[in-house]
Amino acid sequence: MLYCVEMEVVVPPGTDPDTLARLKADEKARAQDLQRRGQWLHLWRVAGRYANVSVFDVESHDALHDILSTLPLFPFMTLRVTPLARHPSSLA
Amino acid sequence: MLYCVEMEVVVPPGTDPDTLARLKADEKARAQDLQRRGQWLHLWRVAGRYANVSVFDVESHDALHDILSTLPLFPFMTLRVTPLARHPSSLA
Amino acid sequence: MLYCVEMEVVVPPGTDPDTLARLKADEKARAQDLQRRGQWLHLWRVAGRYANVSVFDVESHDALHDILSTLPLFPFMTLRVTPLARHPSSLA
Amino acid sequence: MLYCVEMEVVVPPGTDPDTLARLKADEKARAQDLQRRGQWLHLWRVAGRYANVSVFDVESHDALHDILSTLPLFPFMTLRVTPLARHPSSLA
Amino acid sequence: MLYCVEMEVVVPPGTDPDTLARLKADEKARAQDLQRRGQWLHLWRVAGRYANVSVFDVESHDALHDILSTLPLFPFMTLRVTPLARHPSSLA
Amino acid sequence: MLYCVEMEVVVPPGTDPDTLARLKADEKARAQDLQRRGQWLHLWRVAGRYANVSVFDVESHDALHDILSTLPLFPFMTLRVTPLARHPSSLA
Amino acid sequence: MLYCVEMEVVVPPGTDPDTLARLKADEKARAQDLQRRGQWLHLWRVAGRYANVSVFDVESHDALHDILSTLPLFPFMTLRVTPLARHPSSLA
Amino acid sequence: MLYCVEMEVVVPPGTDPDTLARLKADEKARAQDLQRRGQWLHLWRVAGRYANVSVFDVESHDALHDILSTLPLFPFMTLRVTPLARHPSSLA
Amino acid sequence: MLYCVEMEVVVPPGTDPDTLARLKADEKARAQDLQRRGQWLHLWRVAGRYANVSVFDVESHDALHDILSTLPLFPFMTLRVTPLARHPSSLA
Amino acid sequence: MLYCVEMEVVVPPGTDPDTLARLKADEKARAQDLQRRGQWLHLWRVAGRYANVSVFDVESHDALHDILSTLPLFPFMTLRVTPLARHPSSLA
Repeated sequence: MLYCVEMEVVVPPGTDPDTLARLKADEKARAQDLQRRGQWLHLWRVAGRYANVSVFDVESHDALHDILSTLPLFPFMTLRVTPLARHPSSLA
Repeated sequence: MLYCVEMEVVVPPGTDPDTLARLKADEKARAQDLQRRGQWLHLWRVAGRYANVSVFDVESHDALHDILSTLPLFPFMTLRVTPLARHPSSLA
Repeated sequence: MLYCVEMEVVVPPGTDPDTLARLKADEKARAQDLQRRGQWLHLWRVAGRYANVSVFDVESHDALHDILSTLPLFPFMTLRVTPLARHPSSLA
Repeated sequence: MLYCVEMEVVVPPGTDPDTLARLKADEKARAQDLQRRGQWLHLWRVAGRYANVSVFDVESHDALHDILSTLPLFPFMTLRVTPLARHPSSLA
Repeated sequence: MLYCVEMEVVVPPGTDPDTLARLKADEKARAQDLQRRGQWLHLWRVAGRYANVSVFDVESHDALHDILSTLPLFPFMTLRVTPLARHPSSLA
Repeated sequence: MLYCVEMEVVVPPGTDPDTLARLKADEKARAQDLQRRGQWLHLWRVAGRYANVSVFDVESHDALHDILSTLPLFPFMTLRVTPLARHPSSLA
Repeated sequence: MLYCVEMEVVVPPGTDPDTLARLKADEKARAQDLQRRGQWLHLWRVAGRYANVSVFDVESHDALHDILSTLPLFPFMTLRVTPLARHPSSLA
Repeated sequence: MLYCVEMEVVVPPGTDPDTLARLKADEKARAQDLQRRGQWLHLWRVAGRYANVSVFDVESHDALHDILSTLPLFPFMTLRVTPLARHPSSLA
Repeated sequence: MLYCVEMEVVVPPGTDPDTLARLKADEKARAQDLQRRGQWLHLWRVAGRYANVSVFDVESHDALHDILSTLPLFPFMTLRVTPLARHPSSLA
Repeated sequence: MLYCVEMEVVVPPGTDPDTLARLKADEKARAQDLQRRGQWLHLWRVAGRYANVSVFDVESHDALHDILSTLPLFPFMTLRVTPLARHPSSLA
């Protein structure tokens, strides 16, 4: 099932630079691992903001929550989750 | 270039049913034509709302505007356009 | 899978009373049918507003959309859909 | 009487990890105790956010406030309380 | 139990003046009847707006909803309902 | 003259517990003193939030501001002030 | 006492032009009469919008409401009322 | 002096097509006349919406209001006006 | 030219009291100096909030920005600037 | 291609003054360099706020993101990006 997820990251002032760098690296590794598994279907950068528009393909809300809530940058994120159904005009 | 476009349709009360049916048919035909051309890349239905999340792949803002502003249901739409850049963690 | 759905109904001024009465009756029949099937799990009235808080148990976003978008009062509704996962503290 | 309560938890940056772990454990114990008493009727996780949708069954506003305001994580919570009445279409 | 209820009335353009006058008279009669019964505890006009701030004293959410949803002007109202508990500093 | 005042208190993370306890005690004493003078007419707790709905009866905006701005918890408060006029349907 | 009042006028589509012209003329006459009485202290146009920022000097909330609610264009207005107190840095 | 003005046009349902066509033609003629005078400095279409971002160069707020409030489509517009000062980093 | 400026001051937690007292004194001195020059035309306190409604009379946006951005409390302020034109009904 | 970008800067309390001064200097140098390259087409200060309205002329969303996300003050910025198309009434 598909979910559109918008994630905006706000890093709290005073966050230790090394910690942040490690979190970002872990985030990238997780994101790429999930893409290889076909769960993180699309990942686009919102031009001009530390945010992304993503589409996940997972089998349940629980699966989605387990993925999102364990992303390394999750504590710094504001997320908007939109469940996507099949559009009657879609040729996909 | 990629644009994420969210479209919500609100049909004014009292709209003539036949007119609406024709507009919807024209909208479907346009959407499918644009998908065949590779311009309307993704088209998903927002579950529970008369709205969609779409991704367009066109060469300029003007091209995007020409497409969106001539959609048959455009007068009934509220749109949110988000330019999408390449995400550094994306494997696409 | 569980979805929390909040529905607010705004009846356009000038709506024909008989049409409205019929729509409301159809809506009630649909709602009760869906409850008997176990799909419309909870249906509560928001005290003081023509709105409800509901929980649906259906197998996919598409199933949810098919139900909600064909509710007789759907054209008069504003909906908010929240996918619900299992809470780690829940005993259910 | 039923209340729908949405709780979103935002943990302030720099919160001591041990303190947070203890608060979370206490919160879980409280939540499960209240569920056993039948007061915390439903507890669902909002997929993708550190938030929940809950339904409480208590005898008064005061009882609800005493419960919510003494939850261990209350100081980190933003809450929305919606009093729920019986829906005329509900079969419950 | 106490509920703070804010009501804002927006009369749709083109509403028949006589109908509106009758609705207003009925609304006034209802409001005064409910005050005599001690259910509509306080009724204040928001200075500068066709709105009021009220406090109701009724025994349940259902009772509140039955009163509010059957007010003659209810179809023209936007309502905000806030359940009120006893304040620890209150001398009342 | 009557003013409806909604106050929401947000205590900044890291506030010294003793300082906060003292502020709360001072706030309670002030609130009760103002109630005895008949200036703080009504004080209700918003169920589920560290907030209150109050009604003040004072002779001018300046008097209201002097009271509110010198409340011990004022620096942690977000306030909404609504001037209340006599409602034509009120029996009070 | 001083009140800052922002008024935005939205004329419903299809309003009869003559009726509107008469209402506008009545509104102007009222506004100028209230200015001569010293009650409508300041009246400025918000550049670019059919809106104004005004300051009223009247003796009570009730007086303010009586004035505002009987303005000819009141049914087309959205108003925001802010009670103004004396500023400690003001030389007025 | 420079003003950034965002204009969003919403045409009421049921507007007579000929009237709308005439208004649009008049709007275009006015816009082009104001551009030739150097008052309407920039006029860009917001991609995907019946809206524009403009910059006006006029000598006063009054001049700006006279221009905007007499635009043929003004009754259908929602406007946001932002006064622009010289930016210390600007090379213009 | 006239500008309505609303300023809300939020002092960050942990701000050194002496620094704050000095800033407030400087702010008062600046405000009174600008009033004597006729630039800060009106300065009213919003009853119940650490905010003011002001009207400035200066010759340009740049002049306004220079004044506001150099106010001692500017770093703690949220401002809303509204350019004011002459109202056709104003007798001033 | 043109993008309207609104940037609001909020400097976190406690930011080291020297660091801030250096960041501001770097920001100015970057902005002026981008203007010389014709990429930062317009840069205006929003009168009364630590914000600007800018227009960028770059060849893609990615180019825009690379510029904005590497601005020295980017971590303190809230940005709104609006893709601009050619307006049919524009003479430019």
